[in-house]
Amino acid sequence: MQAYIFEFIGTGMLILLGNGIVANLVLKGTKGSDSGWVGISLAWGISVFVGVFISADVSGAHLNPAVTVGLATAGKFDWSLVPGYFVAQILGAMVGNFLVFLTYKKQYEITEDKGAILATFSTSPAIRSPFWNLVTEIIGTFALVFGVFYIAGGTISDEPVSLGSLDALPVALLVMGIGFGLGGPTGYAINPARDLGPRIAHSILPIKGKGDSDWGYAWVPVVGPIIGGALAALAYLAVGI
Amino acid sequence: MQAYIFEFIGTGMLILLGNGIVANLVLKGTKGSDSGWVGISLAWGISVFVGVFISADVSGAHLNPAVTVGLATAGKFDWSLVPGYFVAQILGAMVGNFLVFLTYKKQYEITEDKGAILATFSTSPAIRSPFWNLVTEIIGTFALVFGVFYIAGGTISDEPVSLGSLDALPVALLVMGIGFGLGGPTGYAINPARDLGPRIAHSILPIKGKGDSDWGYAWVPVVGPIIGGALAALAYLAVGI
Amino acid sequence: MQAYIFEFIGTGMLILLGNGIVANLVLKGTKGSDSGWVGISLAWGISVFVGVFISADVSGAHLNPAVTVGLATAGKFDWSLVPGYFVAQILGAMVGNFLVFLTYKKQYEITEDKGAILATFSTSPAIRSPFWNLVTEIIGTFALVFGVFYIAGGTISDEPVSLGSLDALPVALLVMGIGFGLGGPTGYAINPARDLGPRIAHSILPIKGKGDSDWGYAWVPVVGPIIGGALAALAYLAVGI
Amino acid sequence: MQAYIFEFIGTGMLILLGNGIVANLVLKGTKGSDSGWVGISLAWGISVFVGVFISADVSGAHLNPAVTVGLATAGKFDWSLVPGYFVAQILGAMVGNFLVFLTYKKQYEITEDKGAILATFSTSPAIRSPFWNLVTEIIGTFALVFGVFYIAGGTISDEPVSLGSLDALPVALLVMGIGFGLGGPTGYAINPARDLGPRIAHSILPIKGKGDSDWGYAWVPVVGPIIGGALAALAYLAVGI
Repeated sequence: MQAYIFEFIGTGMLILLGNGIVANLVLKGTKGSDSGWVGISLAWGISVFVGVFISADVSGAHLNPAVTVGLATAGKFDWSLVPGYFVAQILGAMVGNFLVFLTYKKQYEITEDKGAILATFSTSPAIRSPFWNLVTEIIGTFALVFGVFYIAGGTISDEPVSLGSLDALPVALLVMGIGFGLGGPTGYAINPARDLGPRIAHSILPIKGKGDSDWGYAWVPVVGPIIGGALAALAYLAVGI
Repeated sequence: MQAYIFEFIGTGMLILLGNGIVANLVLKGTKGSDSGWVGISLAWGISVFVGVFISADVSGAHLNPAVTVGLATAGKFDWSLVPGYFVAQILGAMVGNFLVFLTYKKQYEITEDKGAILATFSTSPAIRSPFWNLVTEIIGTFALVFGVFYIAGGTISDEPVSLGSLDALPVALLVMGIGFGLGGPTGYAINPARDLGPRIAHSILPIKGKGDSDWGYAWVPVVGPIIGGALAALAYLAVGI
Repeated sequence: MQAYIFEFIGTGMLILLGNGIVANLVLKGTKGSDSGWVGISLAWGISVFVGVFISADVSGAHLNPAVTVGLATAGKFDWSLVPGYFVAQILGAMVGNFLVFLTYKKQYEITEDKGAILATFSTSPAIRSPFWNLVTEIIGTFALVFGVFYIAGGTISDEPVSLGSLDALPVALLVMGIGFGLGGPTGYAINPARDLGPRIAHSILPIKGKGDSDWGYAWVPVVGPIIGGALAALAYLAVGI
Repeated sequence: MQAYIFEFIGTGMLILLGNGIVANLVLKGTKGSDSGWVGISLAWGISVFVGVFISADVSGAHLNPAVTVGLATAGKFDWSLVPGYFVAQILGAMVGNFLVFLTYKKQYEITEDKGAILATFSTSPAIRSPFWNLVTEIIGTFALVFGVFYIAGGTISDEPVSLGSLDALPVALLVMGIGFGLGGPTGYAINPARDLGPRIAHSILPIKGKGDSDWGYAWVPVVGPIIGGALAALAYLAVGI
């Protein structure tokens, strides 16, 4: 149960700080509207650092169903714990995004751009093309989960704990690298909970003039990362070290 | 007494470098006027690194009444030391900001924007709304102090020392993350000493054409962080690890 | 054989994330077109971190023929392994760049600037001057390989493994510093595999309206880094510590 | 003698990468002209990291006469070694800047702005005011050297070695913080060798249309840092830990 709580907390911190930078960038009336993609990439990496650092020693800091699936596929995480991790991650993401909403309440009130409001919750592609967007998410998540295997190398076992707090910095740098390098086409969800939890929150929260939640795209940042995480596990097993 | 001195030094360094970047960004006639929010977020995090690194092994590097209150609330810091820490932190912030003033003396002389001058001392909200500004400061400080509990985890005890110099980097990254993600609405005081000390300095210093010190807003970045720090302590106790 | 595989993987990750940021910056229809040189320098350094971290403990993480040549010149790496490392590095770079192509497939389709497309593969000089471009690449690679000798100092031996995963951060910072400081004239290939492998990929891949692969310049980012790496080895031996 | 050689090498790397970013930013025909103050601050900090990392274990990595004077004033460095360190630092800075000149040779040829060319060698104030420029340099160097005392704390002794390679990151972050926060008025020489060595190089090198070397200002970034370093030593002794 402690592991579920820390997956909830870690994912909550991840989304609070991570979607916070998006809100800072795209909503009207903020001080950080010039943060740009450098700000996005650095801040999401830092958010991962914080979430992983806090939760690693208790839950292994997956914070991401694609990581959970990848570790389970590789036999490094018990499949029976997977559903509980998923629920904790999605709930954490929803609560984290709700706190973003409270933090930027006045900014949401004066922002009329529906796309900007949705962007503070879920990702959307720069060029809509379900197949190629899926490819992008698969490659990005593959890079993440494949890297996680080697970063956590010293501690991977059949135990549920996989990442330790000392792994927080390497994973954060990896996510910064993915943001800079692979985030351009789809905004790098690379994490079903990061996209789906906030999308649910977006559809529930009473935000004035918020527009629809773009459910037509919602499967891409869920399916892509799961495939990418599983492929990374297979590649890790194939390489054999 | 050594602990008070190092709280004074650490907070002084924090404000010297931290409000230094604000001066570099907003005053006329500087070389760093294009630093933007990326510069603000990175530099304040780095300022925290320096302040914590220097003071941690002697005073525990609170540098922030909200951290002090949070630790005391959780029973990890002796309440009898709290008033002395507050005084040291506020005096340190005042002296640090005085050094910023000397560093940028010629720039202050040619800057006519009263808001810019005040910004090199204290925070002000992007959209003025006392209640929501308070909420923003509570959430930002909650993230900070809650994170500090886990970063300092290995060393938290009933002793006055809580953070060690090895904790300087994680705390700095946490503050960078809060700046990027939660700093947009209020400029993230998340520290009563960081805002109140400089505001007192602003009201005292003979700066030509400086305008008023916006005392009407001064309670928000004091009360919000104290509430946020206390709530973080309660959450930490509730989680129980 | 494991060493070759990890050189392949490490160089692949390096190019995937590294040329990914170039694609994000220069192609049309991405989210990171404002990343600028700060983004380029930070992201390439981070890419080096990821590549080195993953491969260091198996292959020594050269990821760069100039490093391989430098270590061999200094007697720290067996010349008989050099050809295999070269092949692994160039193949890794080609595959990494192919994944960049898939990641940004839709962006390539709408980008008409032939120079931008080539830039997502190989470097080109800001001012074309073969001799001085060569000098720039020699100096940049000298700084890299000379630094690598001291970063890897504790682990350099006659064994094929040279860098360890703990060296990933210092090397990454060194590459960031070279990007910021020495990358301005030629885009800092400082790595024959990083430039030649992608140039081969560019000439092979069926990219619509891609233009030529600028083979006339191709020798500069191959020869320059090899010279720079060898000179660094000689300097290292001359200094004698 | 080894210590002098490594002071030479370390300062050379510092200036090569550090003034390299200035060249990238201000000369015509580079790829990094949008690096801005964020680039300057990050890159100079990284340059310090590289220089310190390479030289620390042999020479103690002063790389800066103000650090040397500060350590000697505090009784932590033998005065008899001070002149040799000065010479090595200034020569290293000259050679480092000569390599910047070679790296950007074609860019120097097309740059007509005399101030830009000088900026790739030595600092100049944003607002010329010898007294206040001196104050700025004193405060910036005080922050640097005072911080160095505590960063090197575990290893400070009467031995000539003061900083170790593990201190490279904290010192680099400190210099980044000084750049962001205190660099706005004078471009933060905070190091007599960093300013004087390159100014000599500027006056010697046959750069077409280079303009004068602004010797009238040259004493400020020499005297200011020496005063700041000595004051930091006195403050360190006064604090007593």
